[in-house]
Amino acid sequence: MQAIGIDLGGTYIKAALVHKAFGLVRTNSVETGADKGKEHVLNQIEEVVKSLMRRRDRISGVGIGAPGSIDMDRKMIIKPANMPGWDVVDMRKILKKRLGKRLNIFVENDANAAALGSARYGAARNYDHFIMVTLGTGVGGAIVFNKRIFRGSTGAAGEVGHVTINYAGPPDLTGVNGAIEAYLGQRFLVGHAREHLEDFPESTLYVSPGLENLTPATITDAALNGDPGAISVLEWAGRKLGCFLGGVVNLLDIRTIVIGGGVSKAGDLLLKPAREIIPSYIVPGMQENVVLVQETLGNEAGMLGAACLVFDQLDDQNQK
Amino acid sequence: MQAIGIDLGGTYIKAALVHKAFGLVRTNSVETGADKGKEHVLNQIEEVVKSLMRRRDRISGVGIGAPGSIDMDRKMIIKPANMPGWDVVDMRKILKKRLGKRLNIFVENDANAAALGSARYGAARNYDHFIMVTLGTGVGGAIVFNKRIFRGSTGAAGEVGHVTINYAGPPDLTGVNGAIEAYLGQRFLVGHAREHLEDFPESTLYVSPGLENLTPATITDAALNGDPGAISVLEWAGRKLGCFLGGVVNLLDIRTIVIGGGVSKAGDLLLKPAREIIPSYIVPGMQENVVLVQETLGNEAGMLGAACLVFDQLDDQNQK
Repeated sequence: MQAIGIDLGGTYIKAALVHKAFGLVRTNSVETGADKGKEHVLNQIEEVVKSLMRRRDRISGVGIGAPGSIDMDRKMIIKPANMPGWDVVDMRKILKKRLGKRLNIFVENDANAAALGSARYGAARNYDHFIMVTLGTGVGGAIVFNKRIFRGSTGAAGEVGHVTINYAGPPDLTGVNGAIEAYLGQRFLVGHAREHLEDFPESTLYVSPGLENLTPATITDAALNGDPGAISVLEWAGRKLGCFLGGVVNLLDIRTIVIGGGVSKAGDLLLKPAREIIPSYIVPGMQENVVLVQETLGNEAGMLGAACLVFDQLDDQNQK
Repeated sequence: MQAIGIDLGGTYIKAALVHKAFGLVRTNSVETGADKGKEHVLNQIEEVVKSLMRRRDRISGVGIGAPGSIDMDRKMIIKPANMPGWDVVDMRKILKKRLGKRLNIFVENDANAAALGSARYGAARNYDHFIMVTLGTGVGGAIVFNKRIFRGSTGAAGEVGHVTINYAGPPDLTGVNGAIEAYLGQRFLVGHAREHLEDFPESTLYVSPGLENLTPATITDAALNGDPGAISVLEWAGRKLGCFLGGVVNLLDIRTIVIGGGVSKAGDLLLKPAREIIPSYIVPGMQENVVLVQETLGNEAGMLGAACLVFDQLDDQNQK
């Protein structure tokens, strides 16, 4: 079985022809051109899908990971961020008209789509249940239970970045005080690192890239090169992550956590301090078997997971 | 359809004959006598079940809400608190032998059983998804999704009292820093109230019951009688509750919260400050339609919910 998976981003539309058993067959990407309006973006989607098809390819459908809210039926994109003029768009209807009415069309939130990619082709493929945490400009994520996205009552579940771990802490990008994003989100981590590095005058980060040019990537790279100041920043970040994850384990009894996004490249430099602190934030009965792993699929996860929306639906239909 | 629902507590075994449509038919309770050992407790269970049966009663099974962990198959009680010498007990096997092998026997964690009672016969009966928070000596609860208990990967999900909202806060009864139990659990709330009342020298609580005899119940009663100090304590408690609940909404997109247990008797004196603060701890897209309600079923919830374990299983079988 094959399907097209699309990662609809604010800057690029990344698309892949995905084979259910073998993963990526071929990929292509085009600029989104979101500022040129909805019709332009829809044209770009149509074009990139058609570019992936060869004469003999048969596809079962198209899955799309998109920013913003998605309806419970997985057909509508509701007020996506960075997409001026979209409001509520029925992608299923539009793409059936443009690409073929027999195709199965599904939309999902982009963070959820990436988690599905991880669940089937990535670090989580051996786990039925896991929490995905993606560290980027903000902190996003998803809950996967029984290999499916846990969507909550309206499809919006999994806002892992905005759960407070310090009700009196600094506000995150959405205004929630002391959420994990307010510690590990890009500008928060950089801001903390600047303060933290005062205790490490020998840190290479003062020279390259210089404190004013600090980014999560430069901190991660310096840490991987052994810089004690950068390592200490990531230890601090890992402990904050652990406090949050302990609470999630208590609530959900889901004990596998997959960490993706930029800073996750630090691997155990971030995950080891998290692993060490997690048990102290979990009730005694659930401290065992907590597993933290790094997702290494990167950008591919979103496209792969979007295609899985189609595979899953067809599996469900066949079981009925 | 009728079943027996049992609330197996450390002090009393409360049992009810429950009619699926009409709720409680009749109830009885006996002392647990946990210190007399496992056989004694099992004899007590057998006796209380038989005491509820009349000649013409037909029951489909027996459901038991019990302390401690329950296996995924809902037949074993694993190391229940306050039950010396129990270790792992196969309640299904034992009760089938004592009561009849054709009976359906199910065990569930007591907090989960109480939430099921709320879901079918209590404040949550009009909601498909909700979070139950029970305020008592500790803070317990459960997650109900699609009218069923969300059990997580091993059946232990729903430890709502132990999710940190202040990673550097005081430890709760299980040792987790800054969990909601460390603010609203019985002795924590009383301890805070003693400090808080320093700003309210006119509070009636100084006279009755006196600060050294303070309990959540006396604080709640004084607040309901208009005591400004007691009201202020509950406002503080409600705000802490709101910080926690905002995080839960972000994570699960479950927007109905049912509050039970002693302090919940304060009703809006506790819930209004929680409702006011919750939106500031939720991402913008999920701040609408958050509902906080008070559970008034009290002790009956556990027995009713335990009987529902039987009703649910038979419903599931009939649908297959």
